[in-house]
Amino acid sequence: MDLPQPGQAPLPRIAPDLAALAARLFAALREADHDGVGITRETYGAAETAAMRRIEAVARDHQLQTAWDAAGNLRITLPGTDPALPAAACGSHLDSVPQGGNFDGAAGVIAGLLALLGAQRLGPGPRSLLLLVMRGEESAWYGRPYLGSSALFGAFDPAWLDLPCLQDPSRTLRQAMAGQGADVAAIATRTPLLDPASLSHFVELHIEQGPVMVARGVPVGLVSGIRGNHRHPAARCLGEAAHSGAVPRWLRRDAVLGAADLAMRLDASWRTLLERGEDLVMTFGIFTTDPREHAMTRVPGEVRFTLEYRSESEATLDDFLGLAQAEAAEIARERRVRIELGAPVRTPPAVMDSRLLALAQRLCHAGRMPHEVLASGAGHDAAIFANAGVPSAMVFVRNEHGSHNPHEAMEMADFLEGAAVLQALLLQGAGAVQR
Amino acid sequence: MDLPQPGQAPLPRIAPDLAALAARLFAALREADHDGVGITRETYGAAETAAMRRIEAVARDHQLQTAWDAAGNLRITLPGTDPALPAAACGSHLDSVPQGGNFDGAAGVIAGLLALLGAQRLGPGPRSLLLLVMRGEESAWYGRPYLGSSALFGAFDPAWLDLPCLQDPSRTLRQAMAGQGADVAAIATRTPLLDPASLSHFVELHIEQGPVMVARGVPVGLVSGIRGNHRHPAARCLGEAAHSGAVPRWLRRDAVLGAADLAMRLDASWRTLLERGEDLVMTFGIFTTDPREHAMTRVPGEVRFTLEYRSESEATLDDFLGLAQAEAAEIARERRVRIELGAPVRTPPAVMDSRLLALAQRLCHAGRMPHEVLASGAGHDAAIFANAGVPSAMVFVRNEHGSHNPHEAMEMADFLEGAAVLQALLLQGAGAVQR
Repeated sequence: MDLPQPGQAPLPRIAPDLAALAARLFAALREADHDGVGITRETYGAAETAAMRRIEAVARDHQLQTAWDAAGNLRITLPGTDPALPAAACGSHLDSVPQGGNFDGAAGVIAGLLALLGAQRLGPGPRSLLLLVMRGEESAWYGRPYLGSSALFGAFDPAWLDLPCLQDPSRTLRQAMAGQGADVAAIATRTPLLDPASLSHFVELHIEQGPVMVARGVPVGLVSGIRGNHRHPAARCLGEAAHSGAVPRWLRRDAVLGAADLAMRLDASWRTLLERGEDLVMTFGIFTTDPREHAMTRVPGEVRFTLEYRSESEATLDDFLGLAQAEAAEIARERRVRIELGAPVRTPPAVMDSRLLALAQRLCHAGRMPHEVLASGAGHDAAIFANAGVPSAMVFVRNEHGSHNPHEAMEMADFLEGAAVLQALLLQGAGAVQR
Repeated sequence: MDLPQPGQAPLPRIAPDLAALAARLFAALREADHDGVGITRETYGAAETAAMRRIEAVARDHQLQTAWDAAGNLRITLPGTDPALPAAACGSHLDSVPQGGNFDGAAGVIAGLLALLGAQRLGPGPRSLLLLVMRGEESAWYGRPYLGSSALFGAFDPAWLDLPCLQDPSRTLRQAMAGQGADVAAIATRTPLLDPASLSHFVELHIEQGPVMVARGVPVGLVSGIRGNHRHPAARCLGEAAHSGAVPRWLRRDAVLGAADLAMRLDASWRTLLERGEDLVMTFGIFTTDPREHAMTRVPGEVRFTLEYRSESEATLDDFLGLAQAEAAEIARERRVRIELGAPVRTPPAVMDSRLLALAQRLCHAGRMPHEVLASGAGHDAAIFANAGVPSAMVFVRNEHGSHNPHEAMEMADFLEGAAVLQALLLQGAGAVQR
């Protein structure tokens, strides 16, 4: 935890009436979309649209400008006095996973609204401020995340239009988008809806989906980067099934021991890389002998497993892939098994802008706000902006029990601290990136 | 491989006409019981009885005495001149697994028949020789092995009578036994059918079910002991499921890494124990994350696994259990998981008689027969005899592709070498054990 330095500007906090507005909005969203177990706002669904209209209504009540784009995203604008200047943007999403929580997505939208309303009270500035309420961030419905933000930058693959709804395969994404007023034909042409050069920077507030901030005791997190990943969804270790009593060690080709050896070697390498200060997480999420033939009294002939590793650094991902391949080859020789990792499915990391991160740190110091710099393990719309060339930043708010479940637990006090950082980054970020 | 010592008695080989008889019997059994894929002779089934009657017919053709006991076992006797002397016995079984091979069991029965016929040619000896053709050795049909040999010594649990046939649960073992002429009521009283003190010793020939002898290039194996085992059929490693991207290493409780750590530590201990000369095999036969909740992007919260280890030495089994428990506790502390091994299901080892083993080694030396001493990883009827107090020995014959499958591949030349050792042990074993 960093301590504030003398002589730094203070960090304006959210006004009490705006804090109360935020509390009312969270309550209204929860009331509207609680399904008995959790919060459900389907991607390109009626509840998502209704939640967006609720935000739009508040914006219009406060004389902000609102518009809907061809992808059905909502754009709320506090116009600046100099239309030639790139706009400062913030935003997040309002869809949820089935039976999710009330804060994943919505916190970023409501914080953005508070930021525009707070800025409005300061009087007109030269630069327009945008709040982008984006569609379809969750992959839980059509298997693809970031639908709305991808469309902004012409990165929406038209093939996605034919994706079936995972919960009801008789419906396609195309039908859902059209049903909520999106211009599907326009989206299919991949025409960008927003020029990256028209934005000075982009800031997103989101609840933390991991347990780090609760464990560290900090309300606000500053995101250094959004981890990319390499995934091996169908890795195998192949040995030879054999009688568990009659085959001695020197004649075995035990697939479980081969795969376990790989897991332990990569676990050791993981620890070493962390000690060197590299960002990395590693997961063997699925690891299973073959249910059709495994038995207590049979040397296992095959293990299927998945391997995923994530890092903010593409170089670390590539290094770890090399390590995994080298260890697999060595284990194959030593244990007479074959390890097939397969080529990884790659998602590149999204680098958050170091100048915005440094500004955020200065602001937190100045505001005596306990905070911590951390990587985002999950993906976010901000990654789409960063990869489109828009200098981007993310603010995390402490949250218990992870996300994508009804037990998301964000304290309003923490939210208001994060919202204050978001607002300051929105207003001061353009200066930091000089754009 | 031991070399013969000068001055030792030669090892009489099987006469050519008896070798030809053996070949005809193997061929006849194969022809009678080939089901299109492999050999099928059901435990207490008609094909098992028919095969036994085929052996009985040859025995009677050669004026050997035959009798059936209350468990449906066939006893073939070459009477000795001194009925007060304990008889020398050999034997094996004729049932098979479904779609098994032609040699598992049958090789021991046919070798025993050759031994009695060979002895008959030497003229009457003082001691009777017995060939026991035992019922129901395979657990593949009713889940319990050694049915016939257990009945011999009053070790047949009457509760087994109600076991359903695994292939047709509408039938019970009781019905099958009665159908093949066993006296079920007598068996239910646990009355022994054979006094262990009436036998000087017991010898069984069997194909090797592992790959050791093929790998070593020896036709004959001398069994030092039949491995017992400890089994943990429902072990678990319990951690905590979590987001694979958002949870750092220090906050994880990864069940796969916990269980893999256990496998690797026990693998290292296994190697150490082998280097110290102890007999041990170890198998994690089933090892699986929970299919209801595992995913590539989820830190695994649970692994179910089985652990089995086998040794000729009960002390080694107990030591290894202690090691497993200690490692599990250490891993639990280090990795913040819980490892539940559960109490092991124990099957005690069966010690082969060291005097008979030494005799067998001397005979092989004398006969310039390449051989090797090895443990039996699978169980055999001989274990029942040994544990009933009868000094016992086993002779293995080289066999490719393991057993319990249609690809068992025993060469007749190897079989005849093993049969010669069996015959010599049958005739000379009583002297070695002085009983």
